Amino acid sequence: MSQLTAAQDAAASGAAADQGPIDFRTEPEHYRHWRLAIEPPVATLTLDVAEDGGLVPGYELKLNSYDLGVDIELHDAVQRLRFEHPEIRVVVLTSGKDKIFCAGANIKMLAGSAHGWKVNFCKFTNETRNGMEDASSNSGQIYLAALNGTASGGGYELALACEHIMLVDDRSSVVSLPELPLLGVLPGTGGLTRVTDKRRVRRDLADYFATRAEGVGGRKAVQWRLVDEVVPRPVWVETVAGRATELAARSRCAARSAEAGIQLNPLAKKRNAAGGVVGEISYRWVTARLNREASTAEITVRGPDADAPEDVADIHVQGAGFWPLAMTRELDDLILDLRTNEPELGTWVLRTSGSPERVLGYDELLLSNADDWLANEIVHYYKRTLKRLDVTSRSLIALIEPGSCFAGSLLELALAADRSFMLAGIFDDRAAGDGSQPAVPVPAMIVVGTANLGALPMGNGLSRLQSRFCGDSEGLTTAEERAGVPLDAAAAEELGLVTFAPDDIDWEDEVRLATEERASFSPDALTGLEANYRFAGPETMETKIFGRLTAWQNWIFNRPNAAGQDGALRRYGTGQRADFDRKRV
Amino acid sequence: MSQLTAAQDAAASGAAADQGPIDFRTEPEHYRHWRLAIEPPVATLTLDVAEDGGLVPGYELKLNSYDLGVDIELHDAVQRLRFEHPEIRVVVLTSGKDKIFCAGANIKMLAGSAHGWKVNFCKFTNETRNGMEDASSNSGQIYLAALNGTASGGGYELALACEHIMLVDDRSSVVSLPELPLLGVLPGTGGLTRVTDKRRVRRDLADYFATRAEGVGGRKAVQWRLVDEVVPRPVWVETVAGRATELAARSRCAARSAEAGIQLNPLAKKRNAAGGVVGEISYRWVTARLNREASTAEITVRGPDADAPEDVADIHVQGAGFWPLAMTRELDDLILDLRTNEPELGTWVLRTSGSPERVLGYDELLLSNADDWLANEIVHYYKRTLKRLDVTSRSLIALIEPGSCFAGSLLELALAADRSFMLAGIFDDRAAGDGSQPAVPVPAMIVVGTANLGALPMGNGLSRLQSRFCGDSEGLTTAEERAGVPLDAAAAEELGLVTFAPDDIDWEDEVRLATEERASFSPDALTGLEANYRFAGPETMETKIFGRLTAWQNWIFNRPNAAGQDGALRRYGTGQRADFDRKRV
Repeated sequence: MSQLTAAQDAAASGAAADQGPIDFRTEPEHYRHWRLAIEPPVATLTLDVAEDGGLVPGYELKLNSYDLGVDIELHDAVQRLRFEHPEIRVVVLTSGKDKIFCAGANIKMLAGSAHGWKVNFCKFTNETRNGMEDASSNSGQIYLAALNGTASGGGYELALACEHIMLVDDRSSVVSLPELPLLGVLPGTGGLTRVTDKRRVRRDLADYFATRAEGVGGRKAVQWRLVDEVVPRPVWVETVAGRATELAARSRCAARSAEAGIQLNPLAKKRNAAGGVVGEISYRWVTARLNREASTAEITVRGPDADAPEDVADIHVQGAGFWPLAMTRELDDLILDLRTNEPELGTWVLRTSGSPERVLGYDELLLSNADDWLANEIVHYYKRTLKRLDVTSRSLIALIEPGSCFAGSLLELALAADRSFMLAGIFDDRAAGDGSQPAVPVPAMIVVGTANLGALPMGNGLSRLQSRFCGDSEGLTTAEERAGVPLDAAAAEELGLVTFAPDDIDWEDEVRLATEERASFSPDALTGLEANYRFAGPETMETKIFGRLTAWQNWIFNRPNAAGQDGALRRYGTGQRADFDRKRV
Repeated sequence: MSQLTAAQDAAASGAAADQGPIDFRTEPEHYRHWRLAIEPPVATLTLDVAEDGGLVPGYELKLNSYDLGVDIELHDAVQRLRFEHPEIRVVVLTSGKDKIFCAGANIKMLAGSAHGWKVNFCKFTNETRNGMEDASSNSGQIYLAALNGTASGGGYELALACEHIMLVDDRSSVVSLPELPLLGVLPGTGGLTRVTDKRRVRRDLADYFATRAEGVGGRKAVQWRLVDEVVPRPVWVETVAGRATELAARSRCAARSAEAGIQLNPLAKKRNAAGGVVGEISYRWVTARLNREASTAEITVRGPDADAPEDVADIHVQGAGFWPLAMTRELDDLILDLRTNEPELGTWVLRTSGSPERVLGYDELLLSNADDWLANEIVHYYKRTLKRLDVTSRSLIALIEPGSCFAGSLLELALAADRSFMLAGIFDDRAAGDGSQPAVPVPAMIVVGTANLGALPMGNGLSRLQSRFCGDSEGLTTAEERAGVPLDAAAAEELGLVTFAPDDIDWEDEVRLATEERASFSPDALTGLEANYRFAGPETMETKIFGRLTAWQNWIFNRPNAAGQDGALRRYGTGQRADFDRKRV
């Protein structure tokens, strides 16, 4: 085990190693690798990676190459721009270094990483790039890649996530995807899919491009549609500025430029998860109980503790304290934390608690004010957080119990789950309160709400209800027609909205068996199963990136030709060529 | 290396081991595992596997489990039914054994197989099942699964490829997908995708089903849409017969029942490929030169040696000798042979020779007689053969040289390739004939024909031209408008129909560099790259099966949790539980 793998394993096990668990919370004042300049309507994000700023020891971040730490900052910046800077309509991505925009993911980091770390790293970076495209599409914050030097590998993929790519024309700067010829792996952040499906590069040229380590620049890069324009260095600065101004004028959100953003205050979080069989991660609205013996994380999302305000202006007043936004930020952070730091907790048990009516009240406020920039941002942020759940390689089991509030936006958690159990009736022995659980003498109800009818699409472009009833339009219509009606377990099961509806007598055994069984299966096979079932029906660029491309990359990462002692990834930079098993599979 | 792996490696290297290379040619008289009964309009295919009839030593085919040899016979039967028995409108799949329909792929065979063998085996079985669906859709030969006993794993997946599934209701017969709970892998022949996307099983029920090793039978199997009906054993025979008659009446090809089929005579083939650096596989119209030093197979398809007959009746008279059919059978067999027996030949170089006009003449005859059952069958067979090429994990490079006939149907070979080179002008030094190549003083021309405009769709539902110009409707229209016009290298390059158009001076170097470079890359990364680029744009059930599901399965097959000494696949049947690394990836 390399030093690097050991350090990541320590991080990934949440053990009290030197660096402890990975923390995804940051803010601009703490950035080491990015500079954020706000000059409305344009923001400039400048990548200037600190070579010695790697997240774990064992590599230097040369040539503006990145590791998870660099991407955590990018992710934070993309999020903050949407909430804190609604006046921004164009985000220019550029480099603070001469001659190089970004060399992609750090090879030494990848070569020394455990398989799971690589895969999880790629997942997060993919989500961040999808988030940039989401900002361009849904916030009118259009991303512009200003490649003032070579963009290779993940560096070019970062540019591909932008809506317009400019490359400096200086006879040396190129774009390239050198992963295959140099490393024996594929581009890990959607490059192959975006080249053909987004930029419409012809597939034979795309093939040639992806085997050409030295890349393509100048006129040919434009001709093949790899970039949108090349610009001579002498007029670079003013041309980029001009293009940014033009794009800003075309942004559909020009109207909101006058409004003030809200502050994303630091997220309060208690993490008591190092060592021991049981741990806990808790926030104001979200709690996870980590049960290492059962290999589960029991996640509870609490509904709002007051009715939704009546006026959209109150959302702005409450800001980061507004329940849907506060809850979403916590859930998002928790997903990232558990995915990265707790890989052995293979099943996440999802619960909610609170008032279904109040949840629906907040949904109503948000969805009926979709033209308010902040309401719009909150809905899209919750949408992205649910998507993060969809691509999480953990089994998801929803437990719908008395006192829960699986209604509207929170019902999505049950619809995202691989299976759901809804108690028919009440817990007899808890009716009077058994000390560990509050006494809830009323059976659980779920409610299909407006939020379930299309406002929170999955990566495949469908609502979770549509995905659930894929090809069964009658079942879908019947369920949608019951929107607004509280449904008990029998009705929910009949409508196909929950998987099983055991009563108090069977509940404990059925739920325990389901989680124990899940813990006994091959974790890899479960990952493959869930990745297939969660995205039935149509495909989009996004599902292709997470489903098709990721799966191939996982396979390749695992093969001796890449990851073995004599594989390309391990031999890169040693001067020795990889020794391949030439059999095609 | 297990005995099994050694035997397969020997087979896969084409070495003169005891069993020699795998041969895909067979005929009903030689079947060991299937019985084919023809009672027009119904054919019955009865699976009755010979336990001692495994293709390689090392396992017994118990419980009607299958290996490649069993599937080669099924593939042959499905093909013959289409050509030799146009009077058949329903094909009933059933079992010759009591209590068991089929237990799926033989576990011991899988557990002992090399990774590449498993993947290639799954690819062929997938193609055969897709071929059954193609027969149901395009030949009006509707497949009916009559499960007279339990269908588990690949056995149930075989049923899923049928259009109607009947299960005997005897309190013990079930359908199941026990791969995940028992073996730690996924169903390998499209099961997960077909359960949700074809049979519309709700995804949470599908999840439960795929983790339940004991399967589902009776009423619940119907309720969840896993089967179409359950039938009590006492009325089984007559109910199946009745359903077959009903389906036959609904077959859109009822009209053709009176016509006589043609005979698929044994394919003449010379295989001189054992040992040595250079080998050759040759047929009447197709030749492959195997260059083990360069890791290439140089495939040449010869065009027709006479003009197409004028009358559709002549197709029937010529039968298996009719050029398009004869050529397709040979190409199909060659693809299977090279894929299975020559895994180290990583690049296939595709050439044609002959008259473009004659090829277009045959295309015209076939496509203008699409209502003739035989013409229809030939076009669909060629379509399936091209699809086999699309999912082949070999780099495909088309060389368009003087004397070639890349027109219409044969142009598809160049469009299927990852890259194409078209010589601008002629070979100066060969103009007068240099002995090794015929003297061709006329530059090559390609012709877009009617066959390129939709008659030969890829698995994604698009023509290869549409896939090539994915998202570029202007490029597509411009190319399609030139249909029928011979295009020289400059015009073809300008239209985006070929990748590169070097002249005589550069040709040799460019082509050599491309193939040498390809041979130097990671074979795994190339497989992943090509699987992504060849299917740009939309997805179908078929591309999901080959792209998404296969990739996940490949990854899982490669993981220690499945394939390691302590993995589930290796430990199955030993009484020991698998020892899993519990980290989720």
